[in-house]
Amino acid sequence: MAPQPPVDEEPFTAEQAAVALANEAFYQAVEDGDLDAVRALWIDGEHADTAHCVHPGQPAVHGRSKVLMSWAVVMSRLSYLQFFIMDVRVVVSGEIAVVTCVENVLTDLPASADAVDLPGFAGGRAEATNVFRRMADGRWLLFAHHSSPVFPSGGGDSPDSAD
Amino acid sequence: MAPQPPVDEEPFTAEQAAVALANEAFYQAVEDGDLDAVRALWIDGEHADTAHCVHPGQPAVHGRSKVLMSWAVVMSRLSYLQFFIMDVRVVVSGEIAVVTCVENVLTDLPASADAVDLPGFAGGRAEATNVFRRMADGRWLLFAHHSSPVFPSGGGDSPDSAD
Repeated sequence: MAPQPPVDEEPFTAEQAAVALANEAFYQAVEDGDLDAVRALWIDGEHADTAHCVHPGQPAVHGRSKVLMSWAVVMSRLSYLQFFIMDVRVVVSGEIAVVTCVENVLTDLPASADAVDLPGFAGGRAEATNVFRRMADGRWLLFAHHSSPVFPSGGGDSPDSAD
Repeated sequence: MAPQPPVDEEPFTAEQAAVALANEAFYQAVEDGDLDAVRALWIDGEHADTAHCVHPGQPAVHGRSKVLMSWAVVMSRLSYLQFFIMDVRVVVSGEIAVVTCVENVLTDLPASADAVDLPGFAGGRAEATNVFRRMADGRWLLFAHHSSPVFPSGGGDSPDSAD
């Protein structure tokens, strides 16, 4: 089923739906551990230098080659990874599209203190901001991905929540 | 001094510099606890519904009024807040500008386990993605802010780092 906007939002336009599909394809590629598909979905050519990626809790990575390397590392470390993507919102203006969504993640990593545990699995929730650029051939490619964990406590007692 | 790009980047164009100034003004407004200034820098009018904000560790907040309320809460909880903004990168395309930067934050909150402590203060580092839209009158207004803590450990043992 094609991605749908949150129930309180207007239905997607054809343009928003195309972006939402690119967003979905990206998560599917990571879930599948398909580095070729991930490479094909990240910005390339003259805009390759603008690639920017923040994995949860990590410093930002800049530039296409470093960003792709970071995804290779993420995918190589996990034998199981599944995303349940929710609250997909898409704003399109000209050649840029901004997607925000919630990533519900299930992995086979050992559970952390913040995780919701299932036998043999660990789950977590992250907020994501994904910015796409429309290429001359019409493809929407990612140039900025920012994902960060949501603390079950709300994080209200950390100085990091100052902002 | 006006914001500068990282040393390994090209100098800002006039357009990028204007966005970097809007980004700086936003952090200054929060630092000053100036809610009127914060209100004036967030998207308004026909685009007000697209306002989207992720504070570190928190679930996303949507829509201008809820986003402004979240900033009022942040500012009311802190008697001291200072940002040292680094690694400012600006991509402009049409009416949209994407700013990524590092927020080094100093507050008077009690230190957390992740914080770098000074006597009476707590510090933290966050990665930020700020998306601006150019209004008809030329002002650049924020419509998406995403800030998330960088874990000193690198966060490599958490399922949230799966993505």
